Amino acid sequence: MSKYVWGVDVGGTFIKLGLFTDEGECIDHFEIPTIIEDKGSRILPDIAAAIKDYMDKNHYAREDVSGIGLAVPGPVDSEGIITKAVNLGWGVFNINKEMEELTGLKVFAINDADAAAAGEIWQGAAKGEKSAVMITLGTGIGGGIFLENGLLIGRKGSAGEIGHIPVNDGETVVCKCGNKGCVEQYSSARGIIRVAKLLLEESNKPSKLRDYEEITPREVFALAEEGDAIALEVVDRFGYYLGKAIGIIISIIAPEVVVIGGGVSKAGKIVLDAIEKYYKDYTFHASRDVPLVLAKLDNRAGMYGAAKILLDELKKN
Amino acid sequence: MSKYVWGVDVGGTFIKLGLFTDEGECIDHFEIPTIIEDKGSRILPDIAAAIKDYMDKNHYAREDVSGIGLAVPGPVDSEGIITKAVNLGWGVFNINKEMEELTGLKVFAINDADAAAAGEIWQGAAKGEKSAVMITLGTGIGGGIFLENGLLIGRKGSAGEIGHIPVNDGETVVCKCGNKGCVEQYSSARGIIRVAKLLLEESNKPSKLRDYEEITPREVFALAEEGDAIALEVVDRFGYYLGKAIGIIISIIAPEVVVIGGGVSKAGKIVLDAIEKYYKDYTFHASRDVPLVLAKLDNRAGMYGAAKILLDELKKN
Repeated sequence: MSKYVWGVDVGGTFIKLGLFTDEGECIDHFEIPTIIEDKGSRILPDIAAAIKDYMDKNHYAREDVSGIGLAVPGPVDSEGIITKAVNLGWGVFNINKEMEELTGLKVFAINDADAAAAGEIWQGAAKGEKSAVMITLGTGIGGGIFLENGLLIGRKGSAGEIGHIPVNDGETVVCKCGNKGCVEQYSSARGIIRVAKLLLEESNKPSKLRDYEEITPREVFALAEEGDAIALEVVDRFGYYLGKAIGIIISIIAPEVVVIGGGVSKAGKIVLDAIEKYYKDYTFHASRDVPLVLAKLDNRAGMYGAAKILLDELKKN
Repeated sequence: MSKYVWGVDVGGTFIKLGLFTDEGECIDHFEIPTIIEDKGSRILPDIAAAIKDYMDKNHYAREDVSGIGLAVPGPVDSEGIITKAVNLGWGVFNINKEMEELTGLKVFAINDADAAAAGEIWQGAAKGEKSAVMITLGTGIGGGIFLENGLLIGRKGSAGEIGHIPVNDGETVVCKCGNKGCVEQYSSARGIIRVAKLLLEESNKPSKLRDYEEITPREVFALAEEGDAIALEVVDRFGYYLGKAIGIIISIIAPEVVVIGGGVSKAGKIVLDAIEKYYKDYTFHASRDVPLVLAKLDNRAGMYGAAKILLDELKKN
């Protein structure tokens, strides 16, 4: 094996590229913009060019690098077939093959939520653990499951789809998936904002949330910490419904640890406290002491995980 | 590796012992009674004696057999520590070690629901699949998850505990686990009987179920097939709540197939139909075509799976 691998995380706005040693040290990283135009056809050539450019300028030979791990926003199966990366405008194609042709390097692509889980277990909040479930609280809710033998990819790359676990029989509003009462309706960034607006409408209680033209989860958590009644209720619902979903996941998977990441988790301890108030009530008794921890690698988790998964893949072959 | 392995399934009433080739053929099998007295202290010596006796009588040398796979009714961790096998009267101890000392053979023990999953994927309803989730509908509800790299054992052997997935926010009756609205309260044998009694009390509708002193799931399904109104409602609730739980499990694991087994599943097609009416409503869209199938190995699944897991373990070392 060569000494270095690339970990690349393709987001809707930026692409993060990191050069890693096979020990897990990130020796350099940078970003390029994601050009969505023309159905995302420039994305892979842009990555290939950025890598070539970097390696030329910094005097790396192609033999110094073993390959590229790619984290992408959509399900990827074990052969590299990607589907439903709608944010990038992509159709269905074999991303490993296409990127290998562009770079001449070994490529292995996985879903970005899975990559984040792999990153956190490799060099982040779950470092050294045998297994972990990572919950990514972004606009939606993503899940990554890392087990003793590696990531759980699942049929058609669809394992870990936890945003639509039903947690509220009484919900009357339809989720974008078509069902009602999905955890994403309460505990994603979009869900938190939705619940806040709903409670502000329903209630006459004073709340500083009324002063904002656009509410974000950051304000909700900050105001809850100041004791704002409506914000506290939004955070309580966030914690209750997410806690219920996490209890279910722990009972099924029994991981060593659950890592909470994504933009929403940046509010810190209040996020953990809200979930911890409820999740054990819905967890099988033998697993009630599975700890919850906050993610550590922030938005670099996907880049780290992409590198890690490629290294694992190289070891297999 | 020698030519044969034993697969042993320790139940609360009988212990099933099977002699297998390493290709998966069961060349002979028999049962001995489970003696629960003296805190179950006779169980392992009885198994050891039965194996020795069989091998002596049938002229097998110890070298012909590579080891014993043991399926037991309780969580077993990857080191062989068993806990909570309350039905056998056992405390906490290392079952692999104790059985190895008794027989001089390599021993590997796993939970019986896990063993059943391994059996069905090896030689049963999920034969040839890369992954499967098995749902065992007995007195309670057990789950076994078989992935590409083998069984998902989980922390403290607790993966696959699916009987207490919350599926009904409106439930007022407390489950034996302390929560309310667990799937086991509706879709296990005990749950089906409970719901039947409840509906008979609540309703004045005529039902042949009123003629039975003791209702069993078998009568409920048989009468539902005849169009009995109360029985139909019990079966509908069975399917709705179990379907919801299975949808959640599929969305998290994304297995190739879900196998429905255990005593309750013997009612056959009506069981599948009841679940199929609902489970896709709670399944992530990409996984809605994961098929449900009935188990094939009946009460021999645990014995098969115990042999299979031992063979996998021998290959690792």
